[in-house]
Amino acid sequence: MAPTAKVEYDAKFTDAVIASIGDGTDPRLKEIITSLIRHSHDFFRDINLNTDEFMTGLKYINWAGQMSNERRNEGLLLTDILGLESLSDEITYKNAAANSDVTSSAILGPFWREDTPHRDFGTTISFDTPADAEVAYMFGVVRDAKTGKPIPNATVDIWEASTNGLYEQQDQNQREHNLRGIFTTNAQGEYALYCIRPTPYPVPNDGPAGKLLELLQRHPYRPAHIHLMVKANGYLSITTQIFDKRTKYLEDDSVFAAKGDLLVDFVPREGDPEAKLQCEYNIALAPQ
Amino acid sequence: MAPTAKVEYDAKFTDAVIASIGDGTDPRLKEIITSLIRHSHDFFRDINLNTDEFMTGLKYINWAGQMSNERRNEGLLLTDILGLESLSDEITYKNAAANSDVTSSAILGPFWREDTPHRDFGTTISFDTPADAEVAYMFGVVRDAKTGKPIPNATVDIWEASTNGLYEQQDQNQREHNLRGIFTTNAQGEYALYCIRPTPYPVPNDGPAGKLLELLQRHPYRPAHIHLMVKANGYLSITTQIFDKRTKYLEDDSVFAAKGDLLVDFVPREGDPEAKLQCEYNIALAPQ
Repeated sequence: MAPTAKVEYDAKFTDAVIASIGDGTDPRLKEIITSLIRHSHDFFRDINLNTDEFMTGLKYINWAGQMSNERRNEGLLLTDILGLESLSDEITYKNAAANSDVTSSAILGPFWREDTPHRDFGTTISFDTPADAEVAYMFGVVRDAKTGKPIPNATVDIWEASTNGLYEQQDQNQREHNLRGIFTTNAQGEYALYCIRPTPYPVPNDGPAGKLLELLQRHPYRPAHIHLMVKANGYLSITTQIFDKRTKYLEDDSVFAAKGDLLVDFVPREGDPEAKLQCEYNIALAPQ
Repeated sequence: MAPTAKVEYDAKFTDAVIASIGDGTDPRLKEIITSLIRHSHDFFRDINLNTDEFMTGLKYINWAGQMSNERRNEGLLLTDILGLESLSDEITYKNAAANSDVTSSAILGPFWREDTPHRDFGTTISFDTPADAEVAYMFGVVRDAKTGKPIPNATVDIWEASTNGLYEQQDQNQREHNLRGIFTTNAQGEYALYCIRPTPYPVPNDGPAGKLLELLQRHPYRPAHIHLMVKANGYLSITTQIFDKRTKYLEDDSVFAAKGDLLVDFVPREGDPEAKLQCEYNIALAPQ
């Protein structure tokens, strides 16, 4: 057989696997798994994936699970570097919000915590501020994307890495819940806090995601960003990230989350002994 | 927006993720990951996979890794029930062996062991034979698929579950390496051993694969089978399974490995106090 000859595979195999799904299966699950089977089988056949290569891929999947725990989601990171979380974020956002004035979303990432404490208006989230950090005052208004009306009692959940590139749950030298907090908007829809200007950092390189980045000759860096999750009664919640417009890696974010409409400007702040910089970021939520 | 309106996604996103792969990447890896990115992105968009659904899928992947260890490969089982191992087996076999007289292959499965002991011609692999087991004498000849000539010194690695559906590494009541062994063909290319007639069993249901089978309303059973891995110098190795032609589940194997040309017949055996049944299985290997 000539080396370029196309091998013929059993055309009925994929249909047989799909046909095994029971009739009473949840319709959405059936739809998802049917599509997963079809696309994954097409992938295997298109690339003639042999068993050695398949087993190598499986090793990465099992390795990701073995490294995952309550504080770390390596499976998420492994799919992040293939753009999958960012893609599902785009899909979710575009299907939920037909209104183009709504703040863009961005991926949750693996470092959000469910038990983040609420903090008072205008207080800080930085309790172990390192010497190389630039403290910034961050503020803005949460509005209704349709009417422009401010939304009181919205919650703004914020988290960021320290200047060493580590979130507090990755770093024994940061106290619990450092650089994270939930703020509530006042009667004018305003939120405000002190944070640190974010810095670029590499995603963890001690697992399968780091190994794959290395094999693909890709750098592991993320542009400097702050995570936000904003919720208000009667509105669609939004998960997003804002990026320092002067940061490196905006064009080649290792997890493909950076977007042009999520850039913010850190500018000098006058007359505040607590912070030399400030940054304004306003948020528009879509009514439910 | 009408519920049937098709949402438009960023057409350049997938190309941007693929473009991040470095030029010096191993060409085969680059080809595989490029195809993986394209097909997985198509899957997400075709099905409008939202972030909640994505996170649920990720939970299954991480869960599979967390359950995997030296004795168990749950990631493999999870992909087995989607037909993926069987498909990569078909791909590998058809690309390696253009000769249709070669013995068909079947998946390795998660229970093969690297450190299986060698055993003498005609001895048994059953050391804890349960009361409900039917002992069988299994024998055959390993031949060159092209010339039909017997192959001496080929190794036939055999493993099977006990009648309780468990392989020895899953079962504290079976001794180490029970129901497995490596046999070497004699000068006439013959191998022979005593085993037990295999019985159908369910794949493990305590992990994500079992949970997914349940959600898809599928049964977890495999048809009765014996695993074989056959190797000889100068020939392509073959991994396969033989199926009792009278077993249940030949048409709906939960891991899609059963094939018509791998059926064997367990027939009465005369004049042997050790076994009431026998089964002949001849193997043809492709020259390298």
